[in-house]
Amino acid sequence: MTDETPNDLVLERVLNAPRAAIWRCWTEPALLEQWFCPKPWSVSDARIDLRPGGEFFTVMNGPGGERFENIGVFLDIVPGEKLVFTDAFVPGWRPNGKPFMAASVILSDTDDGRTDYVARAMHWNAETKAEHEAMGFHQGWGAAADQLEALAKTL
Amino acid sequence: MTDETPNDLVLERVLNAPRAAIWRCWTEPALLEQWFCPKPWSVSDARIDLRPGGEFFTVMNGPGGERFENIGVFLDIVPGEKLVFTDAFVPGWRPNGKPFMAASVILSDTDDGRTDYVARAMHWNAETKAEHEAMGFHQGWGAAADQLEALAKTL
Repeated sequence: MTDETPNDLVLERVLNAPRAAIWRCWTEPALLEQWFCPKPWSVSDARIDLRPGGEFFTVMNGPGGERFENIGVFLDIVPGEKLVFTDAFVPGWRPNGKPFMAASVILSDTDDGRTDYVARAMHWNAETKAEHEAMGFHQGWGAAADQLEALAKTL
Repeated sequence: MTDETPNDLVLERVLNAPRAAIWRCWTEPALLEQWFCPKPWSVSDARIDLRPGGEFFTVMNGPGGERFENIGVFLDIVPGEKLVFTDAFVPGWRPNGKPFMAASVILSDTDDGRTDYVARAMHWNAETKAEHEAMGFHQGWGAAADQLEALAKTL
């Protein structure tokens, strides 16, 4: 078998929370800010314009005063089921920066009322994938998913 | 004044044809094939799925038997007015190849019944813009616009 998606990094989990709650955590700025970055980092100033080409903006704040702005756009939205976004464009469909990835989040119900959660980071080449992996993709997205699950359970 | 779009290449023309006819030439495969490549090159096998994320596929054929496949997706469509597409993704919003450009086509009516035509190639960096310019952007897109105008006049 050949891997048709060799430049992807994938996190798959079953989250113990309802799908609708996980969707809210991804799409409501006040909720996203609570889980999107592994602690002690945090997110502020999230802006979510949930339509194709709409803005997805966050600021990641580090414990030592670090501040990173992330801007991108949404590509595809299927409410409650699927979200795709990328940093390759800013609103107005203007190319921006050095394209790093497109990411998709796919949610589906499990038979026992939990949520199958597949978060996929899709890169344009093997070098960027390796860079993302070295930055700690699995640990970082895993820790964020733990925080997401904990928050979604409370909704 | 600073140029806020330093990585763009722009062709602006007034075309002596109705806006609706120019729109058809851009969006109907059988018409697109007749003008999209400067002769003696030609386009075959055009596929146009006119929705955000929909396929934009063409094959460019050279007089010496050259064959180049181009695949991308549409990003934004305002019927009769605006078309934006890119080669950075293939359908399904998967990153593809080395992102070369996003392109926009903006049509508006002039006071005397002709069409103001602005075709813009937007690149991710100065190197790609320079490469596109060296490939003959101005001559190539200009010759294609001549062919577009000639075809649109006949509709």
